Amino acid sequence: MDRLRRFMREVAAQAETRLEGMLPYPDLRPETLHQAMRHAVLGGGKRLRPVITLAAFTAAGGREEDRPGALDAGCAIELLHCYSLTHDDLPAMDNDTLRRNRLTCHKAFGEAMAILAGDALHTLAYGTLARASGPLAADTVAELSRAAGSTGMAGGQALDLEGEGKRQVVEEIERIDRWKTGSIFTCCCRIGAILAGAGDSRLAALSAYGDALGVLYQISDDILDLTAGAETIGKTPGKDRNAGKLTYPAALGLDGARAVMGEKRALALDAIGDFGREALYLRLFADFLAERIVPGSG
Amino acid sequence: MDRLRRFMREVAAQAETRLEGMLPYPDLRPETLHQAMRHAVLGGGKRLRPVITLAAFTAAGGREEDRPGALDAGCAIELLHCYSLTHDDLPAMDNDTLRRNRLTCHKAFGEAMAILAGDALHTLAYGTLARASGPLAADTVAELSRAAGSTGMAGGQALDLEGEGKRQVVEEIERIDRWKTGSIFTCCCRIGAILAGAGDSRLAALSAYGDALGVLYQISDDILDLTAGAETIGKTPGKDRNAGKLTYPAALGLDGARAVMGEKRALALDAIGDFGREALYLRLFADFLAERIVPGSG
Repeated sequence: MDRLRRFMREVAAQAETRLEGMLPYPDLRPETLHQAMRHAVLGGGKRLRPVITLAAFTAAGGREEDRPGALDAGCAIELLHCYSLTHDDLPAMDNDTLRRNRLTCHKAFGEAMAILAGDALHTLAYGTLARASGPLAADTVAELSRAAGSTGMAGGQALDLEGEGKRQVVEEIERIDRWKTGSIFTCCCRIGAILAGAGDSRLAALSAYGDALGVLYQISDDILDLTAGAETIGKTPGKDRNAGKLTYPAALGLDGARAVMGEKRALALDAIGDFGREALYLRLFADFLAERIVPGSG
Repeated sequence: MDRLRRFMREVAAQAETRLEGMLPYPDLRPETLHQAMRHAVLGGGKRLRPVITLAAFTAAGGREEDRPGALDAGCAIELLHCYSLTHDDLPAMDNDTLRRNRLTCHKAFGEAMAILAGDALHTLAYGTLARASGPLAADTVAELSRAAGSTGMAGGQALDLEGEGKRQVVEEIERIDRWKTGSIFTCCCRIGAILAGAGDSRLAALSAYGDALGVLYQISDDILDLTAGAETIGKTPGKDRNAGKLTYPAALGLDGARAVMGEKRALALDAIGDFGREALYLRLFADFLAERIVPGSG
């Protein structure tokens, strides 16, 4: 687990530097828009999407000389993630005030600028991914577009909004988690593998891994939302419960939700069962997500 | 001019069919999101972006077998355009009620769904462009990302919002028009030319043409906003003036604005002066934009 933590710290630091360089300077016109974009992206965060992208790239046997491209592709997905957080926080959506222990973008820069900053990050994500992918751009861009679209991330957010306050059926929760989070985690795995030159069977295995990982992550997030304070999770705690959102802990109780986590961890590990040592980080990462809600268990 | 009108009708009809096929079915989950996306895109419109893309593709000597890819690329830019209109109409932005003689997306589907529909169209645009471009995707996606980003379309909208009610300097108006509209028109020309296999000098000429065309278009739009009724322009008339937006007619008067249009038309035609007959539609299109505010003049 120490090896994973070191890997995560390394990738997060490298991603931070690359993201800083991808974003326009804050004193370049239109200054407010550029400052809002930087506010939405910089200042920490675990950079899980670059971490997963590079872990999958490594697991699929990517070559050292292609690693910078894979890192930038992971950062492109992180830019897309930051756009989606910025829009999800808007008053018309989740109406949130805190994110990563700072004001949300619209609280700091106003609603119009937050919408535009999200849009500009969204479009920057695709340009960054295209440049990082070179001759493989047609494939990677199509992957991200599918994962982020109306039957992926954006669709999951729509289902989530429609489902608030409704009866919480576990199948529906899993569908929403799979669309909102699983699709992007799977996309990280697939893009990392594509940039490593992986064949179809490895791509399929990594897709199954990413899919299980996404649900695993979302459940751990829901449990943290219930049990942790604002300083730990960096956003308003208990908010999902108060909004009547569909979550595993609400539907199954804490123990039931933890049991599903165990199943998903097993599924994730099984999917990459015949990968070699180079899949170490992916294996440890599945454990890490389970461990973050049960400190000391791993 | 009749030949241009026939070409425009043809491309608009083909684009409508392709766009219809690119959009998810309205009865596919999440239904409301998919209905909102279709509302934002379908139901007419002049489809100027596919028209310009195909006119530039033809002008740059594109081959018949590559035309379907160029049409789809133009439709991808149209999807991006529709996302931007959907977000521009939001209450926090221009707060508009009518668009193409119908309710704006947030008036019909609510604000959250309009934000998500715009986001989903945005991401669909890039996937569509990548698939249409094949091995040229790295180039075309980077072009669109630059044109739509914080120093292009999104940046122009930010400058526009910041400038409302301020003193109207012509240089600033031109900068905003160039970013908001010119960047995408230029992008249509460049992507059409890239998919036709054009070299650097033709690309540069078509960039200059698109840049002038964008300003030409924006001025004609501003004049229509002042002089036409809602049934003609399909949106709330006189709105820009009421919002104190920076426009050419407001800064220079109607005659002054028309004079700038004449200059831009000459610049556009000059840029493609040494293209042959295959640039006919581009030439006629520059005339068309001037003519639409002076009926019968061409």
